[in-house]
Amino acid sequence: MKYEDRVDALVAPKGALEMLSQDEIARMSSQSGSLHELFRRCALAILNCGSDSDDPSEVMEQFHDFEIHMVQQERGVKLQLVNAPASAFVDGRMISSVREMLFSVLRDIIFTYHEYNLDRGLNNASSDKITNVVFELLRNANVFRRIQAPDMVVCWGGHSIARHEYDYTKHVGHELGLRHLNICTGCGPGAMKGPMKGAAIAHAKQRVTNGVYLGLTEPGIIAAESPNPIVNQLVIMPDIEKRLEAFVRTGHGIVVFPGGAGTAEEILYLLGILLHPRNADVPFPLVFTGPKESAAYFEQIHSFIGDVLGPEAQNKYRIIIDDGAEVARVMAQGMEEVRQYRKAHHDAFYYNWKLFIPEEFQHPFEPTHENIRGLNLHFGQEVHLLAADLRRAFSSIVAGNVKAQGIASIKQHGPFEIHGDPKLMQKLDALLEAFVVQQRMKLPGSVYEPCYRVITD
Amino acid sequence: MKYEDRVDALVAPKGALEMLSQDEIARMSSQSGSLHELFRRCALAILNCGSDSDDPSEVMEQFHDFEIHMVQQERGVKLQLVNAPASAFVDGRMISSVREMLFSVLRDIIFTYHEYNLDRGLNNASSDKITNVVFELLRNANVFRRIQAPDMVVCWGGHSIARHEYDYTKHVGHELGLRHLNICTGCGPGAMKGPMKGAAIAHAKQRVTNGVYLGLTEPGIIAAESPNPIVNQLVIMPDIEKRLEAFVRTGHGIVVFPGGAGTAEEILYLLGILLHPRNADVPFPLVFTGPKESAAYFEQIHSFIGDVLGPEAQNKYRIIIDDGAEVARVMAQGMEEVRQYRKAHHDAFYYNWKLFIPEEFQHPFEPTHENIRGLNLHFGQEVHLLAADLRRAFSSIVAGNVKAQGIASIKQHGPFEIHGDPKLMQKLDALLEAFVVQQRMKLPGSVYEPCYRVITD
Amino acid sequence: MKYEDRVDALVAPKGALEMLSQDEIARMSSQSGSLHELFRRCALAILNCGSDSDDPSEVMEQFHDFEIHMVQQERGVKLQLVNAPASAFVDGRMISSVREMLFSVLRDIIFTYHEYNLDRGLNNASSDKITNVVFELLRNANVFRRIQAPDMVVCWGGHSIARHEYDYTKHVGHELGLRHLNICTGCGPGAMKGPMKGAAIAHAKQRVTNGVYLGLTEPGIIAAESPNPIVNQLVIMPDIEKRLEAFVRTGHGIVVFPGGAGTAEEILYLLGILLHPRNADVPFPLVFTGPKESAAYFEQIHSFIGDVLGPEAQNKYRIIIDDGAEVARVMAQGMEEVRQYRKAHHDAFYYNWKLFIPEEFQHPFEPTHENIRGLNLHFGQEVHLLAADLRRAFSSIVAGNVKAQGIASIKQHGPFEIHGDPKLMQKLDALLEAFVVQQRMKLPGSVYEPCYRVITD
Amino acid sequence: MKYEDRVDALVAPKGALEMLSQDEIARMSSQSGSLHELFRRCALAILNCGSDSDDPSEVMEQFHDFEIHMVQQERGVKLQLVNAPASAFVDGRMISSVREMLFSVLRDIIFTYHEYNLDRGLNNASSDKITNVVFELLRNANVFRRIQAPDMVVCWGGHSIARHEYDYTKHVGHELGLRHLNICTGCGPGAMKGPMKGAAIAHAKQRVTNGVYLGLTEPGIIAAESPNPIVNQLVIMPDIEKRLEAFVRTGHGIVVFPGGAGTAEEILYLLGILLHPRNADVPFPLVFTGPKESAAYFEQIHSFIGDVLGPEAQNKYRIIIDDGAEVARVMAQGMEEVRQYRKAHHDAFYYNWKLFIPEEFQHPFEPTHENIRGLNLHFGQEVHLLAADLRRAFSSIVAGNVKAQGIASIKQHGPFEIHGDPKLMQKLDALLEAFVVQQRMKLPGSVYEPCYRVITD
Repeated sequence: MKYEDRVDALVAPKGALEMLSQDEIARMSSQSGSLHELFRRCALAILNCGSDSDDPSEVMEQFHDFEIHMVQQERGVKLQLVNAPASAFVDGRMISSVREMLFSVLRDIIFTYHEYNLDRGLNNASSDKITNVVFELLRNANVFRRIQAPDMVVCWGGHSIARHEYDYTKHVGHELGLRHLNICTGCGPGAMKGPMKGAAIAHAKQRVTNGVYLGLTEPGIIAAESPNPIVNQLVIMPDIEKRLEAFVRTGHGIVVFPGGAGTAEEILYLLGILLHPRNADVPFPLVFTGPKESAAYFEQIHSFIGDVLGPEAQNKYRIIIDDGAEVARVMAQGMEEVRQYRKAHHDAFYYNWKLFIPEEFQHPFEPTHENIRGLNLHFGQEVHLLAADLRRAFSSIVAGNVKAQGIASIKQHGPFEIHGDPKLMQKLDALLEAFVVQQRMKLPGSVYEPCYRVITD
Repeated sequence: MKYEDRVDALVAPKGALEMLSQDEIARMSSQSGSLHELFRRCALAILNCGSDSDDPSEVMEQFHDFEIHMVQQERGVKLQLVNAPASAFVDGRMISSVREMLFSVLRDIIFTYHEYNLDRGLNNASSDKITNVVFELLRNANVFRRIQAPDMVVCWGGHSIARHEYDYTKHVGHELGLRHLNICTGCGPGAMKGPMKGAAIAHAKQRVTNGVYLGLTEPGIIAAESPNPIVNQLVIMPDIEKRLEAFVRTGHGIVVFPGGAGTAEEILYLLGILLHPRNADVPFPLVFTGPKESAAYFEQIHSFIGDVLGPEAQNKYRIIIDDGAEVARVMAQGMEEVRQYRKAHHDAFYYNWKLFIPEEFQHPFEPTHENIRGLNLHFGQEVHLLAADLRRAFSSIVAGNVKAQGIASIKQHGPFEIHGDPKLMQKLDALLEAFVVQQRMKLPGSVYEPCYRVITD
Repeated sequence: MKYEDRVDALVAPKGALEMLSQDEIARMSSQSGSLHELFRRCALAILNCGSDSDDPSEVMEQFHDFEIHMVQQERGVKLQLVNAPASAFVDGRMISSVREMLFSVLRDIIFTYHEYNLDRGLNNASSDKITNVVFELLRNANVFRRIQAPDMVVCWGGHSIARHEYDYTKHVGHELGLRHLNICTGCGPGAMKGPMKGAAIAHAKQRVTNGVYLGLTEPGIIAAESPNPIVNQLVIMPDIEKRLEAFVRTGHGIVVFPGGAGTAEEILYLLGILLHPRNADVPFPLVFTGPKESAAYFEQIHSFIGDVLGPEAQNKYRIIIDDGAEVARVMAQGMEEVRQYRKAHHDAFYYNWKLFIPEEFQHPFEPTHENIRGLNLHFGQEVHLLAADLRRAFSSIVAGNVKAQGIASIKQHGPFEIHGDPKLMQKLDALLEAFVVQQRMKLPGSVYEPCYRVITD
Repeated sequence: MKYEDRVDALVAPKGALEMLSQDEIARMSSQSGSLHELFRRCALAILNCGSDSDDPSEVMEQFHDFEIHMVQQERGVKLQLVNAPASAFVDGRMISSVREMLFSVLRDIIFTYHEYNLDRGLNNASSDKITNVVFELLRNANVFRRIQAPDMVVCWGGHSIARHEYDYTKHVGHELGLRHLNICTGCGPGAMKGPMKGAAIAHAKQRVTNGVYLGLTEPGIIAAESPNPIVNQLVIMPDIEKRLEAFVRTGHGIVVFPGGAGTAEEILYLLGILLHPRNADVPFPLVFTGPKESAAYFEQIHSFIGDVLGPEAQNKYRIIIDDGAEVARVMAQGMEEVRQYRKAHHDAFYYNWKLFIPEEFQHPFEPTHENIRGLNLHFGQEVHLLAADLRRAFSSIVAGNVKAQGIASIKQHGPFEIHGDPKLMQKLDALLEAFVVQQRMKLPGSVYEPCYRVITD
């Protein structure tokens, strides 16, 4: 008996978009071509998540003849798939989780785009407006739960980490799960998968049947990285900044695992927010952790933060090396502080309205040579503003390292020039140098050619 | 120990509006004064539903100092009540169903008004648009369920009926409930309460724990009639026409009990729709039923329908006298036909998209002397159009009998003049005369002074 | 269409006996003839509970050709019914609750009889053994629930009470239900039905979907009185004494409504237990209540208890007249005391192991002339022993009034002679006289011929 | 912060024994010393299942000072643990699944021993009696579920298998789980863990939240092998024969993975039963499967079965090599046949009453030199009887290889002598020789010294 590697199917919604009005279906069906291609690629990434291959471009190549269309019926919308990967099906029926995620993608790429006017509506939006839209997108995705106590731990860290680091993220997730905590990550591989896997096993041991494994992603990421199959709630936020805001407003605490410049960027994003005076008394459990081999990485980060943002910034987190149980205990205890604070301030458990996010962290930063030269990397300004521009500096390096547009720009104009205060630049340079030495700037094995120059004023 | 008859309380949402964005709360809080008074009166009607008194004006009088305000918190909106009826509370805690209904009212009077721009948006809406808005309002109220088979029986009939008629509605409801069917009514007393009460007991006997008792009302009605406490889903539709559309699109079949001119109006509404050629093959179980004392009532109705709309119209329903079990069996069997039809046509179980409702039945009719004179009550037109204008004629009589504006208008200008074809007018006059004799035009005991004159062309 | 009043059916178990071993089925099937007739009569009473008729002998007469047999299958036991009342069925399918109760009867009359050797095993059982068997029978009937707090209120009172008294029992049940309390009664009509009905409506209002309406009965009673259809847990205890023990060990508090000599007997049973020194600190919420018309009844009871058992006995209960909300508040508060006591003493919430029941209250009393003459109705003994013999005296009067054997015995030997201390006998005589005057000794309308003589020593 | 490796705790029941009568607790507490030591060792194995160590003797050594006692309270029995492994606890609270399994052990080792008189009651039990006791033990362990269709696949195979074989068992379990099938194994490592692990992940993907991972073990095994933590239903049957009967009566189909002589024994057990004429038409899906490297193993088994038991025996199973999806499809299809058969024969889904198990397979076989010499290994007898004695031969080899008593016996008296028909002995010898070559008789690495001699008559 021979089984084909391609399947044609007509699929009804599950989990999302089960009950649409005819108007909503009509609006979705009138989608423009560019959105359709994005949707097609994201859908393919989802359909492929039952497979072993992790390489998205290979998948795109292999299933170049995959097609997907909306079918409008009175009962609601359905999806017509042609040449879909057979790995998403069992004896002709689509796997439930794949079906759920497929309609999450349809919801977040097509449906919310139309219903929220995402293209026009958010360009000049106020800070409040953005915060409200992030709320509504998450609510629309059924992310919010009625809970008795905060329990959502966000895990950040690299998607391409060493085996011992990956095992450690599983271990920490296991310890979190044993304490009935849930996990939110960026929903790709590496530090985004390990904690969910560990927590899932721990939840089974604790007979927790309603464990939440929330994946927050954005269109650029999901098309390249299939969500791991443990994710049972998937939301595709419109862009990176909305996604970061979703992390810090739905998560009740954050654990940071080792990563590259991207992780440094995330750390600066969060510290910048927490250092704002209006957030001075908002409890936000934050732990940096890794196996003992990663101790040096966090020491360098810690030292850089101390030098540049000061001891106040260092007080915002704890570093715990090679002790997953302790990480979980600190988080569990932090949840209790969050609970008391929200109770006292009449804030919701499911969304951190009280946290103030300055606009500097909400609007996208485009890493051009000119924008980078314009960064204000000097002491003598409010510390959260310095953090904001440092975040942008790291963001630029990420772009220069791996993003198509950044690489092209550097090819044409040479390395990004990061100007600033001499002492600050020296610290920055040292940190970046350490990342290079630890092979965190590129995949292990390749020789790293820096995409930046640090220039003292 | 003395217990006060008034309670002050701060109440959190239940069932509706539990998770609002700050923007939504802000929009709700900016409500205009006129809406507030409507909301206050509806809220008071709800809060009074634990009490024995049925007289709304008495309640309004007694609790003239009742006040209600929205309180905006990060966690969401709350309601601050002052001088609320103590009967809505048990030892200081509001009864759960009252709390649910209170927030249903807030949702439907205030929240949807703002979110759907109900004041501006629907004035010149197309037929499709109206149908979509009705869908969205019902969906927003969580009315739609994933069900394996149609099961929702709408019960129509008078709110002020004789004891033996009321007992019969309970009996029919009991037989429906024994067959696992659910009940939807206008949620007031009389024929709107009896079937729910009977079904609730039958559901308990059949160990049905998720029985649905859906009340569809509109602002003008709910402020005057407290919903009966059995209702566990309450929706306040924006006006009478939306409410009628909600009945025929969410219900899978309809049972009509005896009533007055209002019930005749509802019958003509439904027959007019079913007689439209596009609905020729849409199955819609429809039974007229009453105790044996009501046989004459339905004979007159039946005869009038035959004379005026023809035998095709008579084929749309069955009349069953004094046999609740048979009514329930006919409905149960009709559900199966509906199921097969919707399966075959890919229509949803929870909303009858396929049913075509001509615009004549969707737009409100204002019963002025001029409008009534303009009704086209002649043979020789499409039968559904004749039904539409006959419905408007009955609607006018209801207004002239009981509604404030109608009564005032007649005081000033004299009885409404209903012109039309001689034969048709004769039949109409006879039917109305029978209603008068049976005391169905006004409450028993009072002498009825007709608000209309039937005039032969 | 004609529907028969008799139905033949093969019925599979629901709620009980769903999973039996072949051995168990074989033992059940080997039942003796006497048990079979008892089972047949109890089954008929259950099957009749959908009907309007309340008269058991009339039902037995009408369905004299009803037959019921066990059918043994690998899958389990089934029941073959011949000429069963059609009112137990809807369109050929047995009503769920009837099916559940039918198999409760099979379980308690046939199955437990064999599995627990009830005929041989309990004759000379120790007090502990009896308490353990009562526990196991209740557990086997799935009565025990994992609960966070005590919530089971037992309601005692007459089955044949005046309309205003019945309405009051509904009102009290409603107030109990509004406070999320559950109801346990003897499961017949009157004061056994009213509280359940009131609580069921209140539970619906409070959205309590797992309300418990526990009926505890015994073979002699259930064959004569169909359980009311609200009962959703039915247990047939082997005899009256086991049933009384089940009441006081599963109930967390007791409300006593007006009744006849039977109710007086129950009051003396409970007071006798509570007055035992070992129960001195066991909290047991106990309220006597009725509408204002019943005030005199409880005054007489109260006065009799004071005179005969002393003020200590009077301290064991509160009398509340015409205030259902207050009754419910006292019970709700009492539940909290019970909760704390059981927590502190590591006692279960679902069974009151700590309550000591002297053997005098556990072994059946046979009301023969000789046994009654032998009662020790004098002061100067331990008060709980006096209560035990007083209970037996009332029990004898009940037997002489209504039970077949008692009536026959009196016919032959003349009235029972109740001897005792002059002062005590005078009080007893006065109380009984009051019962006669209030028409509580027999059904209203008939003239009461006393079945006893009170004789002073 | 230093965490101890030992914890003292008082633990309340979960999952089993939550509601005991005082009599039951008293009987349990009167346990004899020998049972206590068995219980202590089994409990320790359970408590250790959170740890990484798999070596039971090491664990016994490490926690030689572990003690466990029953504590009798009104509320029920509790367990007092002294020096328990800390890995069973999270921040002082026992992990839920460990707690459940701990009380499963208490139930099956102590409670059922007393309640079922297991020591005395089963020695001379009839075949029917044994089948009934197996049923009652499983029912008492809540193994039986109300299911709509058969879904329980038993997986047999070695506990010590090669990595690629283990991975294949996971793969097959995954394919079974994707088809919503549940898994039952012997609950140790290797082929008993892999299928459960694979199914658990597949159930998560299919959003199956009530997956069953049933572990059937017996006291001798569980004390040596901790159940894997995926098991969510654990039953300890009294001995190996009851355990085998539990497998074939609760399982709806069986998948056999590679193993050693023990697996051959299990195969002969099942074939012997299926070959009995009374089971001729009982459907029983049976698949032998392994990765492609295991093809030779099954070829030898298949050839031996054909030579010795004939082609009829070969027709009872299918061999599928390296195709997990096909295995799962065959099982899913077999479930449907089982469903139809049981429907047609009124047999239960949760227990295979219809399967006839000859007494030869129910009574324990003691592998002494004398008993082995007495085996009848000749053609010319009913084939199921030959299978029974062949099973005993393999059982003896297992005992001689690994069980303490068997090894001692061989040390004293020399190898077991397996006599029989020349042709049959030749086939047997060849098969055993193959096992030796494939290193399936002992752990890889050690040189195997046969514990048997095959002797031709």
